[in-house]
Amino acid sequence: MKHYLKGATTEILEKAQNIKLLVTDVDGVLTDGGIIYDDNRVEYKQFNVKDGQIVEYLKRNNIKVGVISGRNSMVVKNRCEDLGFDFHYHGIEEKSLKLEGVLLKMGIGYEECAYIGDDLWDLPILSRVGLSAAPKDALPYVKERVDFVSSLGGGKGVFREVSDLILMSKGLLDPIVEQLSQNNI
Amino acid sequence: MKHYLKGATTEILEKAQNIKLLVTDVDGVLTDGGIIYDDNRVEYKQFNVKDGQIVEYLKRNNIKVGVISGRNSMVVKNRCEDLGFDFHYHGIEEKSLKLEGVLLKMGIGYEECAYIGDDLWDLPILSRVGLSAAPKDALPYVKERVDFVSSLGGGKGVFREVSDLILMSKGLLDPIVEQLSQNNI
Amino acid sequence: MKHYLKGATTEILEKAQNIKLLVTDVDGVLTDGGIIYDDNRVEYKQFNVKDGQIVEYLKRNNIKVGVISGRNSMVVKNRCEDLGFDFHYHGIEEKSLKLEGVLLKMGIGYEECAYIGDDLWDLPILSRVGLSAAPKDALPYVKERVDFVSSLGGGKGVFREVSDLILMSKGLLDPIVEQLSQNNI
Amino acid sequence: MKHYLKGATTEILEKAQNIKLLVTDVDGVLTDGGIIYDDNRVEYKQFNVKDGQIVEYLKRNNIKVGVISGRNSMVVKNRCEDLGFDFHYHGIEEKSLKLEGVLLKMGIGYEECAYIGDDLWDLPILSRVGLSAAPKDALPYVKERVDFVSSLGGGKGVFREVSDLILMSKGLLDPIVEQLSQNNI
Repeated sequence: MKHYLKGATTEILEKAQNIKLLVTDVDGVLTDGGIIYDDNRVEYKQFNVKDGQIVEYLKRNNIKVGVISGRNSMVVKNRCEDLGFDFHYHGIEEKSLKLEGVLLKMGIGYEECAYIGDDLWDLPILSRVGLSAAPKDALPYVKERVDFVSSLGGGKGVFREVSDLILMSKGLLDPIVEQLSQNNI
Repeated sequence: MKHYLKGATTEILEKAQNIKLLVTDVDGVLTDGGIIYDDNRVEYKQFNVKDGQIVEYLKRNNIKVGVISGRNSMVVKNRCEDLGFDFHYHGIEEKSLKLEGVLLKMGIGYEECAYIGDDLWDLPILSRVGLSAAPKDALPYVKERVDFVSSLGGGKGVFREVSDLILMSKGLLDPIVEQLSQNNI
Repeated sequence: MKHYLKGATTEILEKAQNIKLLVTDVDGVLTDGGIIYDDNRVEYKQFNVKDGQIVEYLKRNNIKVGVISGRNSMVVKNRCEDLGFDFHYHGIEEKSLKLEGVLLKMGIGYEECAYIGDDLWDLPILSRVGLSAAPKDALPYVKERVDFVSSLGGGKGVFREVSDLILMSKGLLDPIVEQLSQNNI
Repeated sequence: MKHYLKGATTEILEKAQNIKLLVTDVDGVLTDGGIIYDDNRVEYKQFNVKDGQIVEYLKRNNIKVGVISGRNSMVVKNRCEDLGFDFHYHGIEEKSLKLEGVLLKMGIGYEECAYIGDDLWDLPILSRVGLSAAPKDALPYVKERVDFVSSLGGGKGVFREVSDLILMSKGLLDPIVEQLSQNNI
């Protein structure tokens, strides 16, 4: 297996190998934490195309993807729908309670679930899932409690990097890189 | 006490321990100084979700929060209301005069007040309050006159870092980090 | 020839010298990968003025410029028209197939074509063209497969840097720099 | 005189001392080069509050400020008016010709004029004025031809840094810093 992620130790790759579901926080992970408003309270949010472009490939390989967000934002809902996330919940105060229910319904264990979060409220989930990850610019007390700290800040492709980590651990990244590099039009 | 902020010396933590009110400038602190306009003079501003998410926890611990801004912006007013700041004043030319009045009314002394600012016009307040702080990308003559220079630039979570510093100094940060990390759903 | 680009080895400059057509991906190259949405699904995109300002000079020197994008965005189409790109295709799933057709029609060989891309789907083209380039923040498995990794991230002037590289290799950069520096009003 | 700018040598400060007029390019200097569009061709631009907040103080000290931009943008025109620039010209192809006329009319010599630019088209002016400056992220062939390379990138306060440099060289920065730091409400 070719290794593309310096921070991914053998231990982390072993954890990643079990993952069947990747769940992510939104603000600070899929975005850089920025919330843009105009004079009329319209909200704008910036996502990264790198994150979105791996969702379909994850799903094709039977890795499910979901969003649990503490905030309630129409922009985020639209983005989640466009990307075809398997589930997305918004305005959730007790994220870990919500995830508990989701896992039960999907028949997926905590050790088969990965989660990316950056703030206090993500700690209950991060301390429980099989693979926990945080952006480079997450709060310091979050970063020191996760398995994998991304080399990228929020909104710069953290979700993509964790996706690649999971795909790599399962031997699913190299084949597509090689295939696409071999000029097969 | 667990220590999460490298730049926070014992002296700074002692100052932080006295703080009952955290006041902040807006442009360059809650934002990266960017002012976005469109063709029709509509103004847009980018805040950081990390800053907002600590306000409620500060207030729950009897630390009041306020904004004194030199500019007059509807976007900022809306954001301050949404976050539940205890007070927010806009278009203030003499910021230190305004703060003087606020402190008198609230019965809070300068040594119990923290202030975050990044530009010339913040100097009168910064040189007087009990704990003065500036973003990493503040003007050089501001940075050399404050107690604490944040590890973060404006709009990247400076307000959050100073909030965490105050909470940490009072022993109020570790308990919530520990509690949330212990899987209590 | 004056040398302005540290990363450009003799080998790269030799490849650049053959280029008659510069094609680029959009998201992550002409932009930083950011996709901004508002509540009403309106899409916003940020380009860099440095990229646009070299297009006319490229064309004046018989270097054609084109865009092949995997996404379908009105903002991108407008920008491409404003800049006078020789061709621009959007929503293309099989980018390399599209380029194959373009090259045939234009009578340009692969070794005369440069391409800038940042993601998996650019690999078939990148592995085939005469000069392949990627932004500093491209996916790691893309960066290790291109001739030239830009010193700049997507949206920061990558297209401009590759344009300058091509112009420099043909001895077309120094003359204009010298001419403009000599006070000829 | 207190020294706040590492890059400002004695030679640069001597040049700055003569300046009576500070002229600046817009894209890449007052902004980071980013041009934001939406689906409907509306243009958005991000300025920095730090740049704007020094204009009044420059004018109060008889240093005039102007803008010469190669592009034609309503957003920029509005911003220039709001800030009270002494003059601002837009859509100017021959910037140096325009400046020549301005200087004649104002009775100001080239050695009394400072200019900040980042791209090829600024070279004719940059090579002629008394103090030439460029942002940290200007094109490499521009940076090597100016007196002063800012420690900041475009849109991060370059105009402010050059303003501070001029004010510092004339002994006009320290007094206001000291005065404001002495708690005079």
